[in-house]
Amino acid sequence: MPQALATLKTLIEEHLAAERSDPVRALQTPEQLRAKFELAPPEEGIPFEELSERLRGIMAATPATASDLFFNQLYGGRDPAAFTGDVISAVLNTSMYTYKIGGVQVLIELALVKRMGQMMGFPDAEGVFTPGGSLSNLAGMVVALNQAIPGYKDHGAQGKQPRIYTSIEGHYSVPKAAGLLGVGQSNVVKIPVDGRGQMLPEALEAAIVSDIEAGFTPAMINATSGTTVLGAFDPIAAISAIAKRHNVWLHVDAAYGGTFVFHPELKAHFADVGLADSVTWDAHKVMSTPLTCSVILVKEKGLMTQAMSQSASYLFQGGEDEFNPGTRSIQCGRRNSALKLWCAWQVNGDAGYLAKTQSVRNNALTAQRCIEAAPELSLVRVPESINICFDAPGVDTDALLDAVCESGQGMIGHAQVDGRTVVRLVFLNSDVRTEVVERLFVAIQAQARALAIAPAA
Amino acid sequence: MPQALATLKTLIEEHLAAERSDPVRALQTPEQLRAKFELAPPEEGIPFEELSERLRGIMAATPATASDLFFNQLYGGRDPAAFTGDVISAVLNTSMYTYKIGGVQVLIELALVKRMGQMMGFPDAEGVFTPGGSLSNLAGMVVALNQAIPGYKDHGAQGKQPRIYTSIEGHYSVPKAAGLLGVGQSNVVKIPVDGRGQMLPEALEAAIVSDIEAGFTPAMINATSGTTVLGAFDPIAAISAIAKRHNVWLHVDAAYGGTFVFHPELKAHFADVGLADSVTWDAHKVMSTPLTCSVILVKEKGLMTQAMSQSASYLFQGGEDEFNPGTRSIQCGRRNSALKLWCAWQVNGDAGYLAKTQSVRNNALTAQRCIEAAPELSLVRVPESINICFDAPGVDTDALLDAVCESGQGMIGHAQVDGRTVVRLVFLNSDVRTEVVERLFVAIQAQARALAIAPAA
Repeated sequence: MPQALATLKTLIEEHLAAERSDPVRALQTPEQLRAKFELAPPEEGIPFEELSERLRGIMAATPATASDLFFNQLYGGRDPAAFTGDVISAVLNTSMYTYKIGGVQVLIELALVKRMGQMMGFPDAEGVFTPGGSLSNLAGMVVALNQAIPGYKDHGAQGKQPRIYTSIEGHYSVPKAAGLLGVGQSNVVKIPVDGRGQMLPEALEAAIVSDIEAGFTPAMINATSGTTVLGAFDPIAAISAIAKRHNVWLHVDAAYGGTFVFHPELKAHFADVGLADSVTWDAHKVMSTPLTCSVILVKEKGLMTQAMSQSASYLFQGGEDEFNPGTRSIQCGRRNSALKLWCAWQVNGDAGYLAKTQSVRNNALTAQRCIEAAPELSLVRVPESINICFDAPGVDTDALLDAVCESGQGMIGHAQVDGRTVVRLVFLNSDVRTEVVERLFVAIQAQARALAIAPAA
Repeated sequence: MPQALATLKTLIEEHLAAERSDPVRALQTPEQLRAKFELAPPEEGIPFEELSERLRGIMAATPATASDLFFNQLYGGRDPAAFTGDVISAVLNTSMYTYKIGGVQVLIELALVKRMGQMMGFPDAEGVFTPGGSLSNLAGMVVALNQAIPGYKDHGAQGKQPRIYTSIEGHYSVPKAAGLLGVGQSNVVKIPVDGRGQMLPEALEAAIVSDIEAGFTPAMINATSGTTVLGAFDPIAAISAIAKRHNVWLHVDAAYGGTFVFHPELKAHFADVGLADSVTWDAHKVMSTPLTCSVILVKEKGLMTQAMSQSASYLFQGGEDEFNPGTRSIQCGRRNSALKLWCAWQVNGDAGYLAKTQSVRNNALTAQRCIEAAPELSLVRVPESINICFDAPGVDTDALLDAVCESGQGMIGHAQVDGRTVVRLVFLNSDVRTEVVERLFVAIQAQARALAIAPAA
């Protein structure tokens, strides 16, 4: 371990410098990379020093997701306290199934679940950390199915056909979970949205009524707080009224948007989340912990254990379910993802997260102003939170993004809006300064002009 | 980050020393720990130095799972190279869904999948790392269900009732997955075992035949390579013949035992695994990487993507499925668990893992000898691999284990064998020396004698 610690210090310091000097790495093909690195495990081991050398090369070739020019996916940034907690988790190597093995780490998770639940309007939530928002949504769906169809865990759907409702702008993990869980992706009803990307409540109710008449069993409505492409918020109060009217579980996928509960204005979107039954919230997105750090929160205690638990005398050896999170997790052995968030929250405090959400929101508004001032660019939507969707009329979006990436100016992804491919720029890293945003748009404008004159092949 | 790195160095060095001087921590109640630590997230952040102080206390209060006296669960130990890889994964913070974002890290995962598949007898497996063996088994079941019932992903079971077969000694994750996936835990048929803990093939075939006659759809047989309690290996060749005869998917849960494919004798148990359709193998168990590091391997390429994929244009932006592991994962955002195993394998080589499996097997045989020589103790089964089940006749097993734990002599769990609670001692940490095992048994014998004279209250 002393050698490992010394090696890590060197490699990490070099990486932080490289992230600044080479923030956007050119994409290399699998063939190029395989020619460069010997990746197959060896028969005889190599000395630790040689591992260190190989890691140095591999790290330099890995896309830099924490650089201030990474705007491509809904994670990134780096919080030193969260990083510290993540490394300590690896050192302690706690498996979070039982109190006997987890001890104080289980209490840390419970403290976060309690606090995050309260922020979402659940006075005394139960919950558990999961390896990502997709699995949090899946866990919520499992609890919903068990509520909609009594005896689901033991006997399955018993001839009933559950249906799931989500907007056409909802995350793909919802139909994916329905496919995995035997509901079937075709039994996910995609509800239309308005121009801002918000689910239309009247369309939702019409779908549920029609499904009930057709003999289906409505099992879960998924409302999204922070949609993937537009960053939009579904109207929770109106959706909750429909859910209660038809006795359907309401899950809120706030994987992306949840952290805006700290933001002075955007927190208004969370005023009614307490009317829902369960919530997904990812800390590895806007709270910038290392992957993965997601929580599933359920308002009523006991339902998760009822839907998921399975006795195992070799594992659960005493204590109440509350202190044995394995009884409400889809996992058995489980990495400790709570400690990193706990560390980050200690150092940031609520006040720090408020400032962080303001910073990323301000960057989005800066981007909006840059686009509105740029004759080459066209804003596709007024940003609902921190997603900026725009394009350069007359210029192919993919060609534009490739040009920006290849010239090292930024790593940005695209999305479909109004049936066409547009730029989706997201601001999750609060370390990105206003000047960086402005400089990025100077670069994008220049690339757009160049491509408008000489379109890419 | 410089402050984080300096803090980590200090905290980790202290922890390693504490792990040696205080390897078995007394269990504290939630009330005791909550009185000692302020766990709720604060409104205002605290200075980093204060976080460091708080972490110091919390680390000292966390059960020490990597100490050489932790024998309680199927993970533990610490491999410095794996630890290095895990920390680098946190620094790089790669999400393993696409080649565009993962780059060379995706190729590292593919290299491991290829190699691990080959060792299991799958010449060209597809696979993906998952957050634990339970989810690897669940993923295998998802693929099996899609094979057993065409159109499962899109339409669910369509009136069919799938059935799953596993032995009564199989891991609880199999019925748990059936409960989560809508199959229903009651549709998991638990096949009896022989005295060594191996599934009885004739009982399996009888169950399948009877189920087919009753109109059920046999969807998956789960054979276990390394059962949780006894460390036993199901007879793959005989089970495979039944699977082929009735056209049922054969999944091998080698989460625990998989690493014994390196062992000179125990590898014989893997000679026929290539006849199966999918395999679970955890590297966070006998290969001692930090949690979690599990892989699901499927023999035929394309089936995982077919069973799991869901299009998402905001995520999958080019390239073939092979290089976009998100298409065959139940997760979306995904921590890189491959790099830590890759690092460990570089330094250990196959030769190092062979030596590691010999070391843990020898410790188990030493334990067997100690028990056989101890008049106070009784061996319940000849060890199949590295699990030692024994008890102290006339002494309550829980009282014995509590006494051993409270006196700081070792952290050991119990299990049910032949309808009674016995000690289940497991050797996964190859750093445990023979003398430590011998000393442990001197302690266990003394505690057993003391309890036989004065039984615990």
